[in-house]
Amino acid sequence: MKLYTYFRSSAAYRVRIALNLKGLPCESVPIHLVKDGGQHRKPEYLALNPAGLVPALDDDGRLLTQSLAIIEYLDETHPEPPLLPADAPGRARARALAQAIACDIHPLNNLRVLQYLKHELGVDDAHKDAWYRHWVEVGLAAVEATLVHDARTGRFCHGDTPGLADCCLVPQVFNARRFGAKLDGMPTILRIAAACDELEAFRQAAPGRQPDAE
Amino acid sequence: MKLYTYFRSSAAYRVRIALNLKGLPCESVPIHLVKDGGQHRKPEYLALNPAGLVPALDDDGRLLTQSLAIIEYLDETHPEPPLLPADAPGRARARALAQAIACDIHPLNNLRVLQYLKHELGVDDAHKDAWYRHWVEVGLAAVEATLVHDARTGRFCHGDTPGLADCCLVPQVFNARRFGAKLDGMPTILRIAAACDELEAFRQAAPGRQPDAE
Repeated sequence: MKLYTYFRSSAAYRVRIALNLKGLPCESVPIHLVKDGGQHRKPEYLALNPAGLVPALDDDGRLLTQSLAIIEYLDETHPEPPLLPADAPGRARARALAQAIACDIHPLNNLRVLQYLKHELGVDDAHKDAWYRHWVEVGLAAVEATLVHDARTGRFCHGDTPGLADCCLVPQVFNARRFGAKLDGMPTILRIAAACDELEAFRQAAPGRQPDAE
Repeated sequence: MKLYTYFRSSAAYRVRIALNLKGLPCESVPIHLVKDGGQHRKPEYLALNPAGLVPALDDDGRLLTQSLAIIEYLDETHPEPPLLPADAPGRARARALAQAIACDIHPLNNLRVLQYLKHELGVDDAHKDAWYRHWVEVGLAAVEATLVHDARTGRFCHGDTPGLADCCLVPQVFNARRFGAKLDGMPTILRIAAACDELEAFRQAAPGRQPDAE
């Protein structure tokens, strides 16, 4: 397998964690989102992935896109250890937590969105950073409220083994810290992030540990 | 089942289509996102869904959130007709198409995001509408490119029966038209949207057909 990745991409980070949790060997192909005006916009990459986004996973010539879809595919094709609960309500909950991050927080803080705010709307850096922190804080507060009110929350987001929701939570917490978002009202999230940080699968997936890290 | 819904919510619209495709009876509970400062922010609703977003589905006392997670849950608990392909690569593709809309387009055009642009960043209506159209056009162009280059695209997004990706595409096309986005370079999307529009399941889910429509 080959993963088209960018060290700082939060969505690629999710897939790197999942690959590590499954113990699947995978070659990294770095796609720099800033250099050369964005390597993801070059014809070579668009020929492969017309959506022009990272990550993308090449599984024996089959190209897969969208981080959550890739993780579910890995879980279906390499079931052990499972990254989704065995029961339908549990799966719905794990997916909802993952989507609360992947749909409600991350898209607003994407590089291309920050670039649009700056270049098209003339938003200054202070307001751009406030925008970033706002969506992280509102979004993670919703995740915290969901986690804290549910007995299915365990050492990890769902029970006592790491899974899909944790693959999304850890990169989002990493970004939140990088941009100085306030996380002090979110003890459950911080506890789970610390539990994940004890596992090599999560540590080795971190941006600073990637071959293309700057 | 009870669906907490808002007639104009694109995410609720997806779930309404899925319920109709499955032929599942469901009571609508309207949650107005503007009236009373937003009924989704009231303590009664937050007690039910701490994330404070619509849609949410109550299945016999079990509350489910996030539109894509709800649709997958409906597909697992009521398998006929299936809304996801039978093979893992097909499921990955259908999910990726759904997420290309639910993660890459819709979150940027959410009501709360438009309100932030206006009230916190002082963006005027013309620039706010341009923002809306920009993300719809960029995002749907990526979806079009993905659809047009793949033999698995059929009468619908994946094959000849409607599924998860179509549940996401139709509400996004509806919104795109409402905001005057340019769709003329997207013949595959328009063809699929027209095919969906021939089905009662899609028509009855439209915003204008809801009990809370204005």
